[in-house]
Amino acid sequence: MSARDPAGSAGRSAAPRLWGGAFESEVDPVIDAYTRSLPFDHRLAAADLVGCLAHARMLFETGVIDPASSRAILKGLSSLLLRVEAGELEVGGGDEDVHTWIERQLTEEIGDAGRRLHTARSRNDQTAVALRLWQRSEVERAVTAAVGFAGALLEHARQHTGTALPGYTHMQRAQPTSLAQHLLAHAWSVLADAGRLRRAHRTAGLCPLGAGAMAGSPHRIDPRRSAQLLGMEAPYPNTMWAVADRDYAAEALFASALTMVHLSRWAEEVILWTSSEFGFARLQDRAAKGSSIMPQKKNPEPAEILRGKSGRAVGNLVSLLVTVKGLPLTYNSDLQEDKEALFDAFDTVGSSLRVARVLAESLEFDREAMAAALEGSYITATDLADQLAVAGVPFRSAHERTGAVVRAAQERGVELWQLPASELRTLVPEIEDTDALLAALHPEASLAAHGSYGGPAPERVAEQIELAASRLQEERRWLDERKPPPVYRAHLDGELLAEAIPGGAA
Amino acid sequence: MSARDPAGSAGRSAAPRLWGGAFESEVDPVIDAYTRSLPFDHRLAAADLVGCLAHARMLFETGVIDPASSRAILKGLSSLLLRVEAGELEVGGGDEDVHTWIERQLTEEIGDAGRRLHTARSRNDQTAVALRLWQRSEVERAVTAAVGFAGALLEHARQHTGTALPGYTHMQRAQPTSLAQHLLAHAWSVLADAGRLRRAHRTAGLCPLGAGAMAGSPHRIDPRRSAQLLGMEAPYPNTMWAVADRDYAAEALFASALTMVHLSRWAEEVILWTSSEFGFARLQDRAAKGSSIMPQKKNPEPAEILRGKSGRAVGNLVSLLVTVKGLPLTYNSDLQEDKEALFDAFDTVGSSLRVARVLAESLEFDREAMAAALEGSYITATDLADQLAVAGVPFRSAHERTGAVVRAAQERGVELWQLPASELRTLVPEIEDTDALLAALHPEASLAAHGSYGGPAPERVAEQIELAASRLQEERRWLDERKPPPVYRAHLDGELLAEAIPGGAA
Amino acid sequence: MSARDPAGSAGRSAAPRLWGGAFESEVDPVIDAYTRSLPFDHRLAAADLVGCLAHARMLFETGVIDPASSRAILKGLSSLLLRVEAGELEVGGGDEDVHTWIERQLTEEIGDAGRRLHTARSRNDQTAVALRLWQRSEVERAVTAAVGFAGALLEHARQHTGTALPGYTHMQRAQPTSLAQHLLAHAWSVLADAGRLRRAHRTAGLCPLGAGAMAGSPHRIDPRRSAQLLGMEAPYPNTMWAVADRDYAAEALFASALTMVHLSRWAEEVILWTSSEFGFARLQDRAAKGSSIMPQKKNPEPAEILRGKSGRAVGNLVSLLVTVKGLPLTYNSDLQEDKEALFDAFDTVGSSLRVARVLAESLEFDREAMAAALEGSYITATDLADQLAVAGVPFRSAHERTGAVVRAAQERGVELWQLPASELRTLVPEIEDTDALLAALHPEASLAAHGSYGGPAPERVAEQIELAASRLQEERRWLDERKPPPVYRAHLDGELLAEAIPGGAA
Amino acid sequence: MSARDPAGSAGRSAAPRLWGGAFESEVDPVIDAYTRSLPFDHRLAAADLVGCLAHARMLFETGVIDPASSRAILKGLSSLLLRVEAGELEVGGGDEDVHTWIERQLTEEIGDAGRRLHTARSRNDQTAVALRLWQRSEVERAVTAAVGFAGALLEHARQHTGTALPGYTHMQRAQPTSLAQHLLAHAWSVLADAGRLRRAHRTAGLCPLGAGAMAGSPHRIDPRRSAQLLGMEAPYPNTMWAVADRDYAAEALFASALTMVHLSRWAEEVILWTSSEFGFARLQDRAAKGSSIMPQKKNPEPAEILRGKSGRAVGNLVSLLVTVKGLPLTYNSDLQEDKEALFDAFDTVGSSLRVARVLAESLEFDREAMAAALEGSYITATDLADQLAVAGVPFRSAHERTGAVVRAAQERGVELWQLPASELRTLVPEIEDTDALLAALHPEASLAAHGSYGGPAPERVAEQIELAASRLQEERRWLDERKPPPVYRAHLDGELLAEAIPGGAA
Repeated sequence: MSARDPAGSAGRSAAPRLWGGAFESEVDPVIDAYTRSLPFDHRLAAADLVGCLAHARMLFETGVIDPASSRAILKGLSSLLLRVEAGELEVGGGDEDVHTWIERQLTEEIGDAGRRLHTARSRNDQTAVALRLWQRSEVERAVTAAVGFAGALLEHARQHTGTALPGYTHMQRAQPTSLAQHLLAHAWSVLADAGRLRRAHRTAGLCPLGAGAMAGSPHRIDPRRSAQLLGMEAPYPNTMWAVADRDYAAEALFASALTMVHLSRWAEEVILWTSSEFGFARLQDRAAKGSSIMPQKKNPEPAEILRGKSGRAVGNLVSLLVTVKGLPLTYNSDLQEDKEALFDAFDTVGSSLRVARVLAESLEFDREAMAAALEGSYITATDLADQLAVAGVPFRSAHERTGAVVRAAQERGVELWQLPASELRTLVPEIEDTDALLAALHPEASLAAHGSYGGPAPERVAEQIELAASRLQEERRWLDERKPPPVYRAHLDGELLAEAIPGGAA
Repeated sequence: MSARDPAGSAGRSAAPRLWGGAFESEVDPVIDAYTRSLPFDHRLAAADLVGCLAHARMLFETGVIDPASSRAILKGLSSLLLRVEAGELEVGGGDEDVHTWIERQLTEEIGDAGRRLHTARSRNDQTAVALRLWQRSEVERAVTAAVGFAGALLEHARQHTGTALPGYTHMQRAQPTSLAQHLLAHAWSVLADAGRLRRAHRTAGLCPLGAGAMAGSPHRIDPRRSAQLLGMEAPYPNTMWAVADRDYAAEALFASALTMVHLSRWAEEVILWTSSEFGFARLQDRAAKGSSIMPQKKNPEPAEILRGKSGRAVGNLVSLLVTVKGLPLTYNSDLQEDKEALFDAFDTVGSSLRVARVLAESLEFDREAMAAALEGSYITATDLADQLAVAGVPFRSAHERTGAVVRAAQERGVELWQLPASELRTLVPEIEDTDALLAALHPEASLAAHGSYGGPAPERVAEQIELAASRLQEERRWLDERKPPPVYRAHLDGELLAEAIPGGAA
Repeated sequence: MSARDPAGSAGRSAAPRLWGGAFESEVDPVIDAYTRSLPFDHRLAAADLVGCLAHARMLFETGVIDPASSRAILKGLSSLLLRVEAGELEVGGGDEDVHTWIERQLTEEIGDAGRRLHTARSRNDQTAVALRLWQRSEVERAVTAAVGFAGALLEHARQHTGTALPGYTHMQRAQPTSLAQHLLAHAWSVLADAGRLRRAHRTAGLCPLGAGAMAGSPHRIDPRRSAQLLGMEAPYPNTMWAVADRDYAAEALFASALTMVHLSRWAEEVILWTSSEFGFARLQDRAAKGSSIMPQKKNPEPAEILRGKSGRAVGNLVSLLVTVKGLPLTYNSDLQEDKEALFDAFDTVGSSLRVARVLAESLEFDREAMAAALEGSYITATDLADQLAVAGVPFRSAHERTGAVVRAAQERGVELWQLPASELRTLVPEIEDTDALLAALHPEASLAAHGSYGGPAPERVAEQIELAASRLQEERRWLDERKPPPVYRAHLDGELLAEAIPGGAA
Repeated sequence: MSARDPAGSAGRSAAPRLWGGAFESEVDPVIDAYTRSLPFDHRLAAADLVGCLAHARMLFETGVIDPASSRAILKGLSSLLLRVEAGELEVGGGDEDVHTWIERQLTEEIGDAGRRLHTARSRNDQTAVALRLWQRSEVERAVTAAVGFAGALLEHARQHTGTALPGYTHMQRAQPTSLAQHLLAHAWSVLADAGRLRRAHRTAGLCPLGAGAMAGSPHRIDPRRSAQLLGMEAPYPNTMWAVADRDYAAEALFASALTMVHLSRWAEEVILWTSSEFGFARLQDRAAKGSSIMPQKKNPEPAEILRGKSGRAVGNLVSLLVTVKGLPLTYNSDLQEDKEALFDAFDTVGSSLRVARVLAESLEFDREAMAAALEGSYITATDLADQLAVAGVPFRSAHERTGAVVRAAQERGVELWQLPASELRTLVPEIEDTDALLAALHPEASLAAHGSYGGPAPERVAEQIELAASRLQEERRWLDERKPPPVYRAHLDGELLAEAIPGGAA
């Protein structure tokens, strides 16, 4: 691509263009390299061909194109699609864009009939339908990866409902929690991300085919049927909106950016936990890297890169919003810039979710280090305050009183639960059973006591795991229900000319 | 607020803090001014008090706080809320944040019982619930404004299904369309925006009350009931996630940013249309401004500012994503930065949608100018190509042939429909009825002919208006169904101590 | 401000506008609230008045305004400026913007002569000069704060050239470094930030006065003289550019955003160092906060907020870039959005640099904890590899050989420098003096040995401190050389009508 | 690259790594594909080799590596560099990154001596020096392109000092200006951009070689000499900062983003001017494109894409700032993400500046259309107000009076200069010579009268052109003075082993 690699801009197109009748001179090479999109939109070739199949089949069914030409076109497109998907036909060369490439290939293959395919269509709706189809299939891949990561977290959580470690606020040890509870917090995040990705799938399911350049068509086309053939939710309600709108891409970029921000939090914790200072976990060799000069080191590089890639995800989102800002209706070539941002966003979020999963699976936790970290920070001070509150001391006063107990323990250099009963009794006369109180101040006891809904007590976490598992199951079910577009199935089954092709969602 | 107005940072707090037992020295004034949030979070006072009511009522129902204290607390909170909403009590002063301010006010009013309210709660869940409640009510206001704007567009559209003007691609006249079709494209955009805002409403409906600092509570609290009392969708499933998560804010910021980007497109068209060059419309005086030195000018300033405010909306979104990036769980004070971005986002999107509506209502269209613009650009050239395609000429060849006809008209200095029939017959022998062809090349005829689904032909647009109106009706219905939180109704009805308060959604 | 606080939008302006002759109806209240800038541009009052003084004095000197009127205007402006700066005159009310407010105040004070001040000027150049002057003075405050932070780091550095601690890469202990070296790395960053801020000062020094609405003036004005009177670098070279350009603001926003990103790194280290896990430092009470429910906690909240505010700084930068994107020349009201972003940016970067300094000054380092962290990670492994390289072993092979030594130490559970000499001799026969080698593997020895330019060896760091101190001195000198604008000095000295006012930089 | 193209992630590396001694298992393929940078950092191969040459020569001069090995290394590197630059050696394959690739190639070529090159170096300083060198050469290319664009604007300006057209504010016709003045406004913008790019060149001139992983080196290296050999400004002052700092990249990304925002304004004007509505210019065929379905259209696609690419430029800037946010010192692998953003930024800004130039050169202006646009909008109303001000009417009153004259002309349907002298005399009695006044109200006269500094009057613009030409000359001179790094010249001259290589800037 010209913008990515100057090398790509060298070749001057000798290929025919879809326009040019009234143009007397050649396009300047600088302009040509700058405006050609084939160096990146080649990735849409298969999606575009599927869109073409739907368009052609609809034109055939409505009689806009005669049966003989239709047959030739459908057969030609099907053959191209097979070869593109099999990798037998490289999508590249001097064409202006992938749409031109497809039309040229088709016409070379089936002759003049190929020149009929553009009836009742423009590149404006053609490119929009291809990008929407591409996005839908990428969302499915990303949700699959999200499910994989959430599943790995759940797997760990099931093993660690009883593994206590400090919960942190402000990066300071705050209250005991369990490793399961901590990992589940990340699982809920990624499940919410999957939900946002799915919404972007649905938004992309508005089919723009038939909108043409922006005014629809005088031909007897059937945009509802095109949508059905592609398994999309509905046809566009307005031709001008259809070619001007990029909400589907914006939603996908946002869902991807927020997912990456979440993964940056997960990465941060992997980095902290595997540091010498925390030592809560180690990464297996398969998920770490070494140093070129420090032989003793094991660096959590994948986690760092994961954290760093949040930058490009936010950047891609900004990129599209800036591009669309201030554009009058309807189609402007600025919108050509939607593609690379979207490609990069899905490449990033997909690979990152897979890496997040490998990191999760590669973590070997050190229970002893976690247990040790529960000491020395008076991590159950709040439990004392809570007991005082139960005993009728207003919470604010209880908070102040607890401070005094903490200072007493500090002076003695002991844990709260190691304070002499007599001293504690003096400091906290409201609570009669001092021994029970001391026991309650042990981190394990604290963990067990935090049994409110959604809390870290093991039996609550067990319930929560079931809830998360059922949410995960929903995502898996959604994935199972994804079907390839009806016209694509017809293509695979050699049924493109069948009497009837059953419709999809629209 | 310190960061907004240095003046705000001058005052040194003399008010008590919610903590400090173990702290020996005062906070540095520079630090104090920097970390205090009351200068901006005062806007959350009412929402926070509603959250407090729900928490207090739940503590009362579960018996965690004794009936007498509960009564005092609920009465005290209710009284505060009345005075805050009536504007009788200014929220400000030296307190650290609005939470501290509320607790201090309450304790001043009802004495020591006020110090019990913080039982089973932390500022971490308190602030999150207040911000979620605030967001939900702001979304409702923003959707109301969106409905107003969409309604104004629809109103115009009903009047202008037959008003022809050029449709543009690449800012070049492309094909005839109708003003109704053009305005409806913007209406669909804002309807989609309303949908995204509503999703952010739902995401904010996860109630974090009871999550405490991050580990829930050892008290017998009932977070499901808190959620019900607030009319929220569900309680949080995980206490750590509850205090770490800001997805609801991110979704709202995204919905607001994309809405503003859409409004920048609308603004751009208002600016273009009211320019001397286009002249398609004029703004009524109530929606324009003059120049300080050029008396002849009428500037579309509201539209320019509308376009310009897309900047701050994207900035606010970026702001939160950057802030959250890389944060370990659970609560970190960085998250305090969520508020101002969110406040500004809703102030911006709400006022902007209202301005967009006033602009729409203030536009006086000039049908003649629009009609004149349909001439001189061979705007129906595509119709000729389409006719050729119908006559069996492959579309690509038709495209080239049409180019020749355009050049012929250019040479004669006439419109396409003014070409001598004889010349046209020579150039386009495939179409037998040359007179019909000439008639079809008139812009009005072209408009009428573009009758495919979603297209600009008047009868299609009439159908489309019904579709849009029913979508608009959905939004209105949603708004009608919004109810204040049950605990808030109980407060208004003086029923906070009633035997039963009916629950809401959760 | 309307967009920040809806309350602000309530008041309907009854004040006269600078335009309106040809306008028949009042501005819609929604539009009025949306477009009025006085709620935020009141902060420019003093800067605007200084710009007015320069304009008035130039008009007086060139004879464009008669002496009597000029005297009245200059006296009136001077009086207004005194009262505004003394806080005796509140800038607010129903006016459209601060420019209108000033003209109204002036005319109320001196009568009709006040209406002459707008000669050869427009709000377009007036607002640009005011914002540039405001920025220049804010940059000076920000550089002062940067100097304060860098100075605090240097102060610590002088005390800690011999304090060893682990240097980290990938958050893993890598090689010994000194605390001085580590702190100096942050000092260099902030010195670079000061340089970028100063460049934004210079860029803002292009004086737009005289550009008018965009076409300059037919009067015999002297823009060079206006620039001189304001102490600015030069007059604008092109009137259209003068009113369209916001590069100075963009540079300031970038400088501020990058500074905040740097401070987020500093904040991250403060947070890590004061965690229980690192324990390298504690914050004095004056720079930390407590918890509302956990009495034992001491939270580095100021550092967290500092880290979090990087979000708004990047957001502000994005905001302006988005706003300016795609605007045709010259002035468009979108540019009104420059102000709040800039105000917030300077409020943020100024207060944040001051907080960064207080954090630095409040850190109490724990040398023992740092020393302890030098053990257990084979942190001098690279030293062994380097010794092998000196002994002629290719570095790559040395790297592998060192790995074997590390594994030997691991197996024995000892530090590298505690390996039995015999074992080391066997593993590393190339180095004859095994005892010297063992000594060299001690962290202190390693630190001393890293004496290459810029390295952590104490004598290198001492040199580096001198270099940094001299850079700091440059910044202080620049600050010392800042002079108030000549016309402002004349105002203070009551010399506004003097024969000659000496010019400034232009 | 994995994130750009999933295809790239397929290949599993079989190549040796620079580390791995202590690693027992292979890196997971998902992790390997995610962390490998060779798929994109291959673009740094030549720059990295130049950095290697400097490092090797310094090691040779200081005696850290023996002469024989040094000779072999220098010869080997030189040979590699020749083949890489000639395109004879493809940089790719299974290596982890370009650094590993170079070391492997070198060792394959010269044997074990190649393994000595990494002495006193780490990938942390190696990658930083390569990226800095690459950036410096890209800045030179971008400044060349900026000079080309500014030159084309100046060329037009010289021809059009007398070509009048409306100057716009708020997209409304405001006052007459000249085409030269308008084009020069863009020229000043791009000259300022060139200045910012040059600053990023200078910032990148801090040489990090010798900083190693972060602690410098115990070897007797000479970082000053390395900097000299590379023609860089100075060596880093602090080894930890050297590897953690990415300010040079941030400055380049900002300079590029602001340049692109400026070019979006230029593009907007090209699009407006070539619209049917404005008609001020047409684009030659070589810089426009046609439509796939509308044969009559000529679309300014290159200008649209130029405008749209501002999005990716802002996105790239955001990307880096987000990535760096919150990172502790020193090197973290997140920083690996700096490269693609920077590559894309320079590809974008370089090609865009070249396109901006072609657009400028391809514009054919229509003087008559511009002249026609000066009518009908009372564009000289301000001139009348100014004349009244000269005649002693306070400007504000003059503004109101002028409004009345405009209304009189509107009622008569004439231009201001066509008003009957008698009527004008009645409306404006203060000005005695009514005929002279009428003449002054003609746009051409207005243009000539606006002779204040920087204004549009032809003689002022002529002066301004000289000023701009001399600024342009400065840029050209700077470019002329750029020299390849001394060590690179020595390489070309076969003098890498010469007694002395003259130093560069450091």
